[in-house]
Amino acid sequence: MAEFVTERQQRATGAPPETPPPESPESLDGAEAAAILDRARASVDPELRTAVDSLPGSMRRIARYHFGWEQADGTPAAGDAGKALRPALVLAAADALGGPAARAAAVRAAAAVELVHNFTLLHDDVMDRDTSRRHRPTAWTVFGDADAILAGDALQALALRLLAEDPHPASGPAAVRLTQCVLELCAGQHADTAMEARAPGEVGLDEVLVMAEAKTGALLGSACALGALYAGAAAEEVAALDGFGRQAGLAFQLIDDVIGIWGDPRRTGKPAGADLAARKKSLPVVAALTSGTPAADELAELYAGPRERADADEIARMALAVERAGGRDWAQAEAADRMARVMQELARAVPDPESAGGLLALAEFVTRRSR
Amino acid sequence: MAEFVTERQQRATGAPPETPPPESPESLDGAEAAAILDRARASVDPELRTAVDSLPGSMRRIARYHFGWEQADGTPAAGDAGKALRPALVLAAADALGGPAARAAAVRAAAAVELVHNFTLLHDDVMDRDTSRRHRPTAWTVFGDADAILAGDALQALALRLLAEDPHPASGPAAVRLTQCVLELCAGQHADTAMEARAPGEVGLDEVLVMAEAKTGALLGSACALGALYAGAAAEEVAALDGFGRQAGLAFQLIDDVIGIWGDPRRTGKPAGADLAARKKSLPVVAALTSGTPAADELAELYAGPRERADADEIARMALAVERAGGRDWAQAEAADRMARVMQELARAVPDPESAGGLLALAEFVTRRSR
Repeated sequence: MAEFVTERQQRATGAPPETPPPESPESLDGAEAAAILDRARASVDPELRTAVDSLPGSMRRIARYHFGWEQADGTPAAGDAGKALRPALVLAAADALGGPAARAAAVRAAAAVELVHNFTLLHDDVMDRDTSRRHRPTAWTVFGDADAILAGDALQALALRLLAEDPHPASGPAAVRLTQCVLELCAGQHADTAMEARAPGEVGLDEVLVMAEAKTGALLGSACALGALYAGAAAEEVAALDGFGRQAGLAFQLIDDVIGIWGDPRRTGKPAGADLAARKKSLPVVAALTSGTPAADELAELYAGPRERADADEIARMALAVERAGGRDWAQAEAADRMARVMQELARAVPDPESAGGLLALAEFVTRRSR
Repeated sequence: MAEFVTERQQRATGAPPETPPPESPESLDGAEAAAILDRARASVDPELRTAVDSLPGSMRRIARYHFGWEQADGTPAAGDAGKALRPALVLAAADALGGPAARAAAVRAAAAVELVHNFTLLHDDVMDRDTSRRHRPTAWTVFGDADAILAGDALQALALRLLAEDPHPASGPAAVRLTQCVLELCAGQHADTAMEARAPGEVGLDEVLVMAEAKTGALLGSACALGALYAGAAAEEVAALDGFGRQAGLAFQLIDDVIGIWGDPRRTGKPAGADLAARKKSLPVVAALTSGTPAADELAELYAGPRERADADEIARMALAVERAGGRDWAQAEAADRMARVMQELARAVPDPESAGGLLALAEFVTRRSR
């Protein structure tokens, strides 16, 4: 914890922090990632729609609503089915290690990963009582808890059926990885829910990092690992690409948490300091609370206040306390560190820079999109 | 529907119904089934416990509580983990078609089926707000909805991980069958929930039968089919054993529904007519409501009354109306018909009576246990 107390002191004296906030490499622009995502969607969408359309009628209806393909009444919708980041990682990893043939072979696995992601979204929304997703009412608000739970269960089964039906030799190891990843996602969601119910002072920084890795990093890592498996990669390459995805996920979470406190409401679409108003135990907040600084005590006191009373002035005081306790600098340094590890893991798995380009653009996209 | 109106008329005139209620074949006694179930539990339990113990800590705790192995505080419990009927069907089917070697090879698949069954129990209890299971408080009442949902998700993933890790050539086709079965279970639970919310007169007999087959028959059928796959059986044998399990499940449901109305409270442990007090749209009730008889109208009127007001007298009137509308005779005749199909499918899959003995004893057990 010492280093970000030092940074805080440097900041207080006007000296620049030693670790600069992460920057986009100049060589990459968002257009490349956007093109990769578009191409992945075009490849995976038919597989995904065929799979969803094979569901029993009642489950199909809820799933099609959730994906934004239909309104609640069954009429077509040109909704937002999400960025398809995870399928894009599967395909980019397969391409990087096995070329176009491996990419083509991995389309079904990419759809399976997207189904798992959406199964967890359906269930997380029920548990977290979230009412909005991709600018539409969440499935449980439209169909009720029971149907949203069942549709999630069905999407998990469908994902694993896709792999079980796939004659490719990688499909078995891919199913082992994906089911193991689901277990980690469940543990991560449990830890998140359990932490939110605990007093702020009782939550350690290590356990929040483990939780964030399980909730956000695990599926990005598995997506990359599945792509590597479909390229016939060696175990070390698979492990390196899993690490690449995990670290990118953690970097994203760190940056997203910073945005959740200091983000521009005009760009985030959320009120300033929304995470503070909700007393979220985000990474910068827990770093601040566990910093052992006077600002940590002040923040703990503010966090103990009743949620309904938090006004703009109080939120501003919380944000300042997190910053003075070093939470912001720590998160930015940690994100930079994760991005460095992203690059290391990528170089280990895909030494040829040209082959690694797609994965690098996606990692950049993941961490840039919320800045 | 005509035949059971006729039966009702026969009953009213004192003539015996043409189709007798199902009876146990004299050659089989419950002791054989009990021994088969004991032996299946002994084979599958170590695999099941190893699998559950491989879960992340938070999920392991909830799962171990649900299986009755631990109290909520983590202390050991000698609880009731259920009869292990489904694993026993997997092993008996493998044994019937492939002998002891196939039975031994199918132990992991048997554990996977039991995990799927318990995943659905965890989720169904949340959706149905059931507070008691196997004489203990349900997981959601102890750990909350979110953790019960997550533990169910984890058990589904664990089931499919067991199959994905299994090098046996049947494991792939088994995973396809089991995931397809989960989709049917989800659709069945959805139909059940949706039907309970509808007016009694709007529910058709065909759709209740489809629902019961999906909710109760599908997993018994899949258990038998998985055993057949592990014995290297031909597609027709696998299909016949699937049908055997499905029909046994439907016969069970029909008999269970009869017990839910006319069962002896001293034997069922539930108050007389509990299903009527809860206005359950059970199979005999829907058969009665759709019979087109005067008693159907009377039953519909009684079912429309407020639930909290149903006293013993009113419940007795409902039971009499179901009986006079032919619902009881229909259910018993239908159960007998399903048991006949159980025997047909079994003979088709396993012509040798000695090899078929274990499966027959289990089918007998399924349909006898609630009588």
